Amino acid sequence: MTVYLVGAGPGDADLLTIRAAQLLATADVVVHDRLISNEVLDLINRTARRFDVGKVPGHSHSQAQINELLVSLGGAYTRVVRLKGGDPFVFGRGGEEAEVLSDAGLDVEIVPGITSAFAGPLLAGIPVTHRGLSHGVTIVTGSTVQGSTVDFGALANPDLTLVVLMGVQRRAIIASELLEGGLRAETPVAVVEWASTDQQRTVRSTLKELAGLDVKSPAVIVIGAVADLELGRVAKFASPFAMSS
Amino acid sequence: MTVYLVGAGPGDADLLTIRAAQLLATADVVVHDRLISNEVLDLINRTARRFDVGKVPGHSHSQAQINELLVSLGGAYTRVVRLKGGDPFVFGRGGEEAEVLSDAGLDVEIVPGITSAFAGPLLAGIPVTHRGLSHGVTIVTGSTVQGSTVDFGALANPDLTLVVLMGVQRRAIIASELLEGGLRAETPVAVVEWASTDQQRTVRSTLKELAGLDVKSPAVIVIGAVADLELGRVAKFASPFAMSS
Repeated sequence: MTVYLVGAGPGDADLLTIRAAQLLATADVVVHDRLISNEVLDLINRTARRFDVGKVPGHSHSQAQINELLVSLGGAYTRVVRLKGGDPFVFGRGGEEAEVLSDAGLDVEIVPGITSAFAGPLLAGIPVTHRGLSHGVTIVTGSTVQGSTVDFGALANPDLTLVVLMGVQRRAIIASELLEGGLRAETPVAVVEWASTDQQRTVRSTLKELAGLDVKSPAVIVIGAVADLELGRVAKFASPFAMSS
Repeated sequence: MTVYLVGAGPGDADLLTIRAAQLLATADVVVHDRLISNEVLDLINRTARRFDVGKVPGHSHSQAQINELLVSLGGAYTRVVRLKGGDPFVFGRGGEEAEVLSDAGLDVEIVPGITSAFAGPLLAGIPVTHRGLSHGVTIVTGSTVQGSTVDFGALANPDLTLVVLMGVQRRAIIASELLEGGLRAETPVAVVEWASTDQQRTVRSTLKELAGLDVKSPAVIVIGAVADLELGRVAKFASPFAMSS
């Protein structure tokens, strides 16, 4: 009667943790999001029941429905794996799910994963911290889905790298608030689409051009002096993601 | 003739990526830091040469010496693994090493790892983002070793979680700057020592008490409304770290 909230990392199955791979191989049930790669899903044992809670025709499950499903499965099966893209406690509402499950009297174990907030920049050759260029890094989401309205002006700090998840749609507003907040128009920007998959693509530009870039979700936006670095190379990408409608 | 800059994660070998474990099993040479757990080092194949560049009697290797060693090994061996705690591009100077190696004409591949900046809070039950409590997260280092002097006052943002790595020694200054910057004295604080090892210990308090806490390095300091949450449980910790003098 344990529900494991497990980070699936950015997509490439080789970037799963050993613990996550072990849990997928031994789960009774796996409840997963839409943006989990086929390569990762292939590691689930054949006898496990699967629920794709991002794939209801027309619309996704609500968070309340997901919570209810997890509580119900947690009462019925010994090993329930809730598989979430990236890391369960870096956005993605893993904390809310953990609270609901604990309140229902279930054991919850959290297994960290590699967040795309860091894997995205890294796989594009961008260190989020770098001597002389960036003393630290801030990660926020550009989406307002979770009820947050981030004040980007307050995040205009030229000493830090800013990583924005789910920010493609609101990139014009984000750029304009950061410029008003004092970031230079020439601040380097990189948009990494589909990080760690074979569709990965990096578009490099500057903050003043961000609004007009031809980029698509899912993508990680990196803003700051490090964003025009390109260090190392990437040997391998995952197979394409499971695309839903 | 490839040097792999590989993230070792927070300590628990089960939190290594599959890619990292594969590289350790097939490396010709491994060059590692001081804070890599024995459990992770045990995954290195028996025939590989090992260099512990954090373990020179009296003092560590300088970064210049490490760079020189990596370039020299990269010219002599087919698969050189440079194993770094956490993630190579989140602090830890992986970007500098990648630059030096590329400049020397060597192939460099970067393999992400789970940063203790996220695994530390997670393994203490703290989600760094949480609806209604935290819209995002900033990570900085409290150490001045890398020549950075972070202005903590500028990071006093009650909407974000602040994670400070290597901040135990300067915690009085950090707290005082954050208070001057406008964070409330009662802002929750958690200090997670030895995250993911069997010595893991979490001390919870508030910002005004941070300076006086009895805590020791290595530790991750979490500051913000999420720091008094304790969600889920942790099933397993790693064996003790390789302690050096």
